[in-house]
Amino acid sequence: MGNDAELAAQVMERIEALARISDETGLLVRTFGSPALRRANDLVAAWMRESGMTTREDAIGNLIGRFPGADADAKTLLLGSHLDTVRDAGKFDGPLGVLTALACVQRLHEQRQALPFAIEVIGFADEEGVRFNSPYLGSRALAGTFDRQKLCWKDSKGVAMAEVIRQFGGNPDALDTAKRDPADLLGYVEVHIEQGPALEAADRSVGTVTGIAGQMRARFAFTGRAGHAGTTPMRFRQDALSAAAEFALAIEDDARRHEPLLMTIGMVSVNPHASNVIPRWAGLSLDLRHPSGAELASAWQRVTGIAERIASQRNTPVAWEEVQEMTPVTFSNELLSLLREAARRHQGTVPELFSGAGHDAATLAELTPVAMLFVRCKEGISHHPDESVQTDDVRVAIAVLNDFLQALARKHHG
Amino acid sequence: MGNDAELAAQVMERIEALARISDETGLLVRTFGSPALRRANDLVAAWMRESGMTTREDAIGNLIGRFPGADADAKTLLLGSHLDTVRDAGKFDGPLGVLTALACVQRLHEQRQALPFAIEVIGFADEEGVRFNSPYLGSRALAGTFDRQKLCWKDSKGVAMAEVIRQFGGNPDALDTAKRDPADLLGYVEVHIEQGPALEAADRSVGTVTGIAGQMRARFAFTGRAGHAGTTPMRFRQDALSAAAEFALAIEDDARRHEPLLMTIGMVSVNPHASNVIPRWAGLSLDLRHPSGAELASAWQRVTGIAERIASQRNTPVAWEEVQEMTPVTFSNELLSLLREAARRHQGTVPELFSGAGHDAATLAELTPVAMLFVRCKEGISHHPDESVQTDDVRVAIAVLNDFLQALARKHHG
Repeated sequence: MGNDAELAAQVMERIEALARISDETGLLVRTFGSPALRRANDLVAAWMRESGMTTREDAIGNLIGRFPGADADAKTLLLGSHLDTVRDAGKFDGPLGVLTALACVQRLHEQRQALPFAIEVIGFADEEGVRFNSPYLGSRALAGTFDRQKLCWKDSKGVAMAEVIRQFGGNPDALDTAKRDPADLLGYVEVHIEQGPALEAADRSVGTVTGIAGQMRARFAFTGRAGHAGTTPMRFRQDALSAAAEFALAIEDDARRHEPLLMTIGMVSVNPHASNVIPRWAGLSLDLRHPSGAELASAWQRVTGIAERIASQRNTPVAWEEVQEMTPVTFSNELLSLLREAARRHQGTVPELFSGAGHDAATLAELTPVAMLFVRCKEGISHHPDESVQTDDVRVAIAVLNDFLQALARKHHG
Repeated sequence: MGNDAELAAQVMERIEALARISDETGLLVRTFGSPALRRANDLVAAWMRESGMTTREDAIGNLIGRFPGADADAKTLLLGSHLDTVRDAGKFDGPLGVLTALACVQRLHEQRQALPFAIEVIGFADEEGVRFNSPYLGSRALAGTFDRQKLCWKDSKGVAMAEVIRQFGGNPDALDTAKRDPADLLGYVEVHIEQGPALEAADRSVGTVTGIAGQMRARFAFTGRAGHAGTTPMRFRQDALSAAAEFALAIEDDARRHEPLLMTIGMVSVNPHASNVIPRWAGLSLDLRHPSGAELASAWQRVTGIAERIASQRNTPVAWEEVQEMTPVTFSNELLSLLREAARRHQGTVPELFSGAGHDAATLAELTPVAMLFVRCKEGISHHPDESVQTDDVRVAIAVLNDFLQALARKHHG
């Protein structure tokens, strides 16, 4: 079981095994504290122990497998990802990161190699936030940023979070014990399915992730004047939907000219909603993401300027409300450059990506240096049963992560 | 009561009186065969008799007041409009045409003037089609185009149309008797609120209506690919909503460049409808109207070409279904030129309009020559309690209709 291809095949088998562990039949869903997550944790823990790791669960239910370093007082490198899923999920989002990390440890174990640092592979108990509509519960406990107010929140069946944690085997009264001391840590590295099309387009197996984009959400509404579709000449119209359409196109054009800015209008509604009435009101959602907080703020300025210009030209006043969702996270240059060198040996050019979606790594960045490696995703499809990763790309991910560990070991040796 | 201003004031009072006759309290609604329409017919019939008319109702419930001509065998000119309304209606849509016609007859009666033709003022029993979702029931009975299949249609309370007609006092078994012989008729002239902003913009009281626009309705749907708003670079997107927005703007631009073409997108929906998901599917309604059938067909060709171009450029395939609603109706040049000359004497330039909405005149055009006169409408608002017409514009409408009658009389004298 020593070579990367064999390890990759085993990872794929294990991903299939985890995909069969679901809270519902006929689709994959595994939420925080659920019976399915219990079985998944137990199965992964067994695999961890087969690879020479000691296992435990922390107070919130994160599964932690520890592979000791050469010295008892060595620092610890964290690897991993999450074992919970969205509803009707794909197989790779989460488990891929846990199992590629485990594959690297398995090889170290088989080769009886101790590194100058300990490795802990973590299966986070909640990243998707499905059960309590609050993501990153697992990594927040580890980072010490868990908000204890949430312990009284209830799931859709009325069960409080504290009770869910207790039933799972955790201890809601001792969540502080899950917090890690940054002085003990070297960092956190997470392998994850890209959930986007960039690696596929670049024809590369993996790419390094330089950070998590900042995100803003907003709602815009244009108000014009309703009118009869058959009696209102075009030049007299104050068509709220036309204003919204012009806004949507201008937003798209602006984002295209400011790569890697992403702007998305996912929701639209008009009032009245009748085929023979000119819309009086049109509302839009807008999602903005950029790895740079300054660029995000600058995009927001342009967006509101565009909205005001269109509103003024069309005599369709605009209103908006903004919701700041997330500030950008920048990953560790040191870890990234080691990952990048490792990847370069296996696939030549290494795309540098940023993540537009949130990850456990974003939470852990408040605790310790972090980096991520994305793995090519078929057609960018994720959060969907069609989510797909090629075995050979998993092979490359394992090889890159292994080389990264060796490079980090050389660095710490001397 | 001889002068136009006095007659206009009386018309406004009578419009207020009719506005108080409603099937519901707090809003104006008077549907086909309803108790409110019964009271409205009775009230208007009383006014008709005060003006020297004999009154009757035909088999479907149209109120008909007859003012005899100088000769017993004279032909008949039809005037009028409808007495039913939409729900939460304005006061002028319908009654204005009946009452301005009645005002002209009143003056003839007061001046003891007999014209070389009889005049019948008609209050149509159903133009809006609210009760049975089928407009023009009244004028269709008169034109002989009533579809007897509809007699078994039921209203929202389960009452069949035949029963409604019977309860109202009509005779569903004798609808053929309502059909008029075109050989007896000179034509039909209808005064109606414009329901659009053109006369207000031209600062004119009235305008002649050269016809009713043809109308097409269609639905378009663009299908792209859903994607994560945070992980799909702009250049990889197949955003169905962006395609729909581009289509909406292109449609608007095309209509602006092809006056008097009207194109309206009144409905839009996307799927999925989430702020962080690129829309996979976007559907639109499209309403097209043009007074020329050929121009309407040509617009439809351009529209489908635009849709296909956008679909191809954006890789978002488009599908559509079309519904032909109404072919255009062209009014009588002879009647229109008399109306236009009459209007010119009172207000100088006379805007030539076409109607984008349907009217009883469109139905009667299959029976006899027709023409319409539109009266200025405040801010183009109609089918709404804010519908408003100025008394002075009613004065002009009465004067123009009166002059038209005198001109038609001179023509028939010799």
